[in-house]
Amino acid sequence: MLGLMQSQPLLISSLIDFAERHHGDAEIVSRRVEGDIHRYTWRDVAVRSRQVAHALDTLNLAPSDRVATLAWNGYRHLELYFGVSGSGRVLHTINPRLHPDQIVWIANHAEDQVLCFDMSFLPIIQAVHARCTTVKTWVALCDADKLPADTGIPGLLSYEAWIGGRPTQYIWPSFDENSASSMCYTSGTTGNPKAALYSHRSTILHAYAAALPDVMCLSARDAILPVVPMFHVNAWGIPYSAALVGAKLVFPGPALDGKSVYELLETERVTYAAGVPTVWQMLLGHMKPAGLRFSTLRRTVIGGSACPPAMINTFNHTYGVEVLHAWGMTEMSPLGTLCTLKNKHLSMSEADKMKIRLKQGRAIYGVDMKIVGEDGAEQPWDGKAYGDLYVKGPWIVREYFKGEGGHPLVDGWFPTGDVATIDPDGYMQITDRSKDVIKSGGEWISSIDIENIAVAHPAVAMAACIGVRHPKWDERPIVAIVKKPGAEVTREELLRFYEGKTAKWQIPDDVVFVDAIPLGATGKMQKMKLREQLSDYKLPNT
Amino acid sequence: MLGLMQSQPLLISSLIDFAERHHGDAEIVSRRVEGDIHRYTWRDVAVRSRQVAHALDTLNLAPSDRVATLAWNGYRHLELYFGVSGSGRVLHTINPRLHPDQIVWIANHAEDQVLCFDMSFLPIIQAVHARCTTVKTWVALCDADKLPADTGIPGLLSYEAWIGGRPTQYIWPSFDENSASSMCYTSGTTGNPKAALYSHRSTILHAYAAALPDVMCLSARDAILPVVPMFHVNAWGIPYSAALVGAKLVFPGPALDGKSVYELLETERVTYAAGVPTVWQMLLGHMKPAGLRFSTLRRTVIGGSACPPAMINTFNHTYGVEVLHAWGMTEMSPLGTLCTLKNKHLSMSEADKMKIRLKQGRAIYGVDMKIVGEDGAEQPWDGKAYGDLYVKGPWIVREYFKGEGGHPLVDGWFPTGDVATIDPDGYMQITDRSKDVIKSGGEWISSIDIENIAVAHPAVAMAACIGVRHPKWDERPIVAIVKKPGAEVTREELLRFYEGKTAKWQIPDDVVFVDAIPLGATGKMQKMKLREQLSDYKLPNT
Repeated sequence: MLGLMQSQPLLISSLIDFAERHHGDAEIVSRRVEGDIHRYTWRDVAVRSRQVAHALDTLNLAPSDRVATLAWNGYRHLELYFGVSGSGRVLHTINPRLHPDQIVWIANHAEDQVLCFDMSFLPIIQAVHARCTTVKTWVALCDADKLPADTGIPGLLSYEAWIGGRPTQYIWPSFDENSASSMCYTSGTTGNPKAALYSHRSTILHAYAAALPDVMCLSARDAILPVVPMFHVNAWGIPYSAALVGAKLVFPGPALDGKSVYELLETERVTYAAGVPTVWQMLLGHMKPAGLRFSTLRRTVIGGSACPPAMINTFNHTYGVEVLHAWGMTEMSPLGTLCTLKNKHLSMSEADKMKIRLKQGRAIYGVDMKIVGEDGAEQPWDGKAYGDLYVKGPWIVREYFKGEGGHPLVDGWFPTGDVATIDPDGYMQITDRSKDVIKSGGEWISSIDIENIAVAHPAVAMAACIGVRHPKWDERPIVAIVKKPGAEVTREELLRFYEGKTAKWQIPDDVVFVDAIPLGATGKMQKMKLREQLSDYKLPNT
Repeated sequence: MLGLMQSQPLLISSLIDFAERHHGDAEIVSRRVEGDIHRYTWRDVAVRSRQVAHALDTLNLAPSDRVATLAWNGYRHLELYFGVSGSGRVLHTINPRLHPDQIVWIANHAEDQVLCFDMSFLPIIQAVHARCTTVKTWVALCDADKLPADTGIPGLLSYEAWIGGRPTQYIWPSFDENSASSMCYTSGTTGNPKAALYSHRSTILHAYAAALPDVMCLSARDAILPVVPMFHVNAWGIPYSAALVGAKLVFPGPALDGKSVYELLETERVTYAAGVPTVWQMLLGHMKPAGLRFSTLRRTVIGGSACPPAMINTFNHTYGVEVLHAWGMTEMSPLGTLCTLKNKHLSMSEADKMKIRLKQGRAIYGVDMKIVGEDGAEQPWDGKAYGDLYVKGPWIVREYFKGEGGHPLVDGWFPTGDVATIDPDGYMQITDRSKDVIKSGGEWISSIDIENIAVAHPAVAMAACIGVRHPKWDERPIVAIVKKPGAEVTREELLRFYEGKTAKWQIPDDVVFVDAIPLGATGKMQKMKLREQLSDYKLPNT
C-alpha cells in the first residue's frame, strides 16, 4: 500500500523558486572578473535564471544536452546553475586549471553544445575552440560592450546580450527527479578523466544534508563565502544549500589572495566560509603580519585535503573561528564526512577534542562507509585497523558517464581509493591514498603521516612521501622536500626530526630536496609525476 | 538522460541502521509508566526493533498491515516506530485521549491487526477490545511478570515476552519509498476522523528538513526532550530526526507535570525541548515559585497552538531559552513553518524581533504556501491581507486514508482550514481558523486576536471568542471567559480592557462567564461545542 502524500519530484528548479519566494531580498554579492563588486538578490538570480532558460530554449537543444561553464564563483555562474539544470539541461562545469588539451578532451567527451566562460579564460577558449567540435554556441560572461571586436571565436555572444530582454517568466518543466542535472569530471591521475553525472534527486538530498547542523550548518542568518570553486563539484553544493535555506552568498571571483578574501569576509559580514587549506594559508599569511581579526566569521569547513593541525589551532585559538574538517569526493557530490563533535565529547579537554578534530569526521546520514582489508574482510572500527574505504548512498556515483572505467561498485559499494581507519564513534581518518600507501615488509606506512611530520619542521614548505622499491622490504618510504625560501635544513637533521614522532621502521630511508612538487588542477600533489621525476633515484645502501 | 547516482530508496529502516552504526552509544532515557528511569542506547533500540520485526513476522501479516499503538513517549514506543515501519508494516499511533468510542471507530477503520498499549491504558483497552474486530494480537508494553493474571483480553501478551529471545539480526526489506509507513487520525471537529497516511519517502524528507538549523536545529550534540506526543503526528518527527543526527533522546512518559519535566531537563542535561503551550505553562508554574533555572536548555519549539507572548518573553528574558514558534498539521507530517529570524533581522531591536517571533514563521524548503481571498484570488504578501491558507509539498497529504473526505486538494494545494497573513519576508501569521473567523459587516474579525487580549487580563484564565448571528452585521463577536480561581472581573471591566487594544468595531459585543471551555483530545478549544452550549444565547440590544 502506498502512502497518500503529495507526489512532487525533487527538482533543482524548486530551489530557486523557493529562494525567490521566501528569501527574495537576501543578497548575492560577487567580486567580478573586472575587480568591482556586484550586488543583487535571490529574486534577481531567479529572474535571470529564467531568462537563461529562455535563451537556451532558442538553441534547439535536446533534453539533457550539456551546457558547459568555464567560470569563477560569481553571480552569472549561479544563474547558469539554476537556468541550465532547471530547464532540463545538464550543467557541465569545467575546471579552467586543466591543461587545454584536457579541456578539449572533456568538452568533446561530454558533447557540450554550449560553453559559457569568464573573460579571464578567453585565451584558453581561443586556443581550444576549433577543436571543441560539438560546441555550437560560445557565450562570454560579460556585458555586450565588453566583448572584444575580433576574438576569432565564430558567433561569440555576450551573456548579457544573450539573456537580456528575454521574458522573465518561465514555467520550469517537471520531469523524473532521477534525470541528470549536472556533471563534473575527476582530474584522474591515471587514464582519461571520468565524469560523475549528478541527478536532481541526488542534488536535492545532498542540499538538505549539507545544510544540517552537523554538516555545514547553514541558515537564513548566514552569509556564506564559498572559496571552493563552482567549477569543481558544485562548490560542495553550497549554491543549492544556500537557496534551500535562503542564505546570503558572497562570491570571491578570481581574487583568492589573502587580502581580497579578507576584505570580502569583513565588508560582507561573512559568517561561514568553505575552502581548501592553500587558500586559508594565504588568508592567514595576510592577516598575521597586519594583526587583523575576523569580526563576523564563526565557522569554516576545510576539505580537499587534510588541514595541517597548526592551521586548525590558529583558527580556533588565535581567531576564534571553528574549523571543521570535511571529506568528500567528486564522486560523492561531494560531501561524505564532517568532523563535528558529539554530545559525549563536549566535556572533554581541548587537547582531546583536538585529537578528534584532526580526523576527517563521521558520516552524514545518507552516506554509509566501511573499511576493507587486503583479504577483502571488513575491518573493525577501532581507530587502529585500516583498510580500503568504501562508501554508498543516494548521492554517490554508481558508474561514470558513458561507462568510462567500467562498473566501479563492489557489492553496491563505491571504492574511494583512500585508505582509512574508523574509530568506535564512527570518526574516519584517511591514512593515505590506496596508490600512495607504502607497503614495507607486509606492513602499510601512511605517506600522509610521513609528510605531516616533515611539514611541522620550520624549514619545510612542502613534503611528499613516496615508496621506492627495496630488495628486502618490497618498498621503503622516502620524502621529497621543498624548503621554505631562505631556510636551510640538512638530510640528517630531518631524519633525526622523525625520531620519537613515529615508529622507527616507518621513518623514511632518505630525504630528497626538490625545487617543487608537481601539483594537479585542483591543487593536489601529483605523486605519479613525482615518481617519474625520481625514476632514476636509488635508495642508499641498496 | 538519467543521472548515474546510486539508487537507494528512502526508507525508515535506514535511519535506525545509521543511528546504530554511527551513534550506537548515544543514550535514550525514558521515564517509564512505572515511574522509574530506563536508560539504554541507540544500539539497543536497533537490536530490539529488529526483534519487533521478527515478532511481527510470526503473525502472518500482509505487507502494509496496520500495527497500532496506544502509548506514551518511551523507549518501547520508539522500538515500535522502527520495527513496525522498517519491516514494511504501517504504524498507527492512536491518541489515548480520544473517547473510547472514537478509539473503536479508528481501530476498525484502520483495520488494525495488532495493538500495543502502555499499562496506563489497560482500562481503555478492557473497555474497547471486544469491539475492535480486526485486532488479532494485543500486546501490553510491559515485562512478562507485570502482566495481570486476568485482564479479560484474550491472548494478551507482554511486549517483553513477545520480543524477548528473538534473533537480534534481521534483514530489513527493501521496497518502494512511496510505501505507507505510518498513519495518524486527525481529531476532526466535524464528521468522522480522517487519517493522514505517511510514506517512507515523506518521513525521510521531513526528517532531513526538521533537523535543519532554521527548523529544529538538531545535532549529535543535542539531548532532546519531546513533550509533543509520539501518539500524535509522530512527535513532530523527532524520533526520526534524532536517529538521523544521532542525538540523545529523553522521553517523559506520562509525567508531564512541571516538576517531573523539570527534573528530566536538568538531570539529563537536555538542550532542546518541543511541546505545546499548556505543558510549558505547567513547567514555568513549577519553576517560578521555587526560583529554579535551566542549566542546559537552550532552545524550545512551541507549536500546536499559538504561544502567548508573555510566555515567549519569560523563556527568552527570564530563563535565557530561545522560544521558536512552529506551525504545522497532522496533514503536514507536521512541520510547515518555523519562526526563526533572518540575517537582516539580527541588527533589529529586541522589541522588533519580538514582533516577528509572535508569527508562526516562514516556510521550510519542501513546503510552499499561499493565501487566497473569498473571491479565490491569491492575496499579496504584505502582512495585512488575509486569506485561506493553502500549502503543498512532498510531506503534505494529497488525500486521506480510504478516500475519507473526498479529494481535498484545490489545484494541487491543500486547504489548511486556517486564515492567515503573510508578510513580505514570508512570515506567516495565523489569524484564525476558517470556521472560527467572525464575519462582521463584510470584514473578518480574528477570534484569536480577541482571545489574546482577554487572556492578557490578570483575572482571565481562558477565553474563547465565537461569532453570534446579528440582524445587521451578519455576525458579531462575543467572548466566553473562564476566570482564574479566586479572581474577579466584571463584564464592563473586560469590555473596557479592549479599548485601545483593537479597532472599535472589533471589540466583542458581550462577555459571557463560563465554568469551563470544552477541550478536544489534543487540548484545543472546541468552539463548535461551545456554540452548542450557548445556542440559547442572544446578543444584547438585538
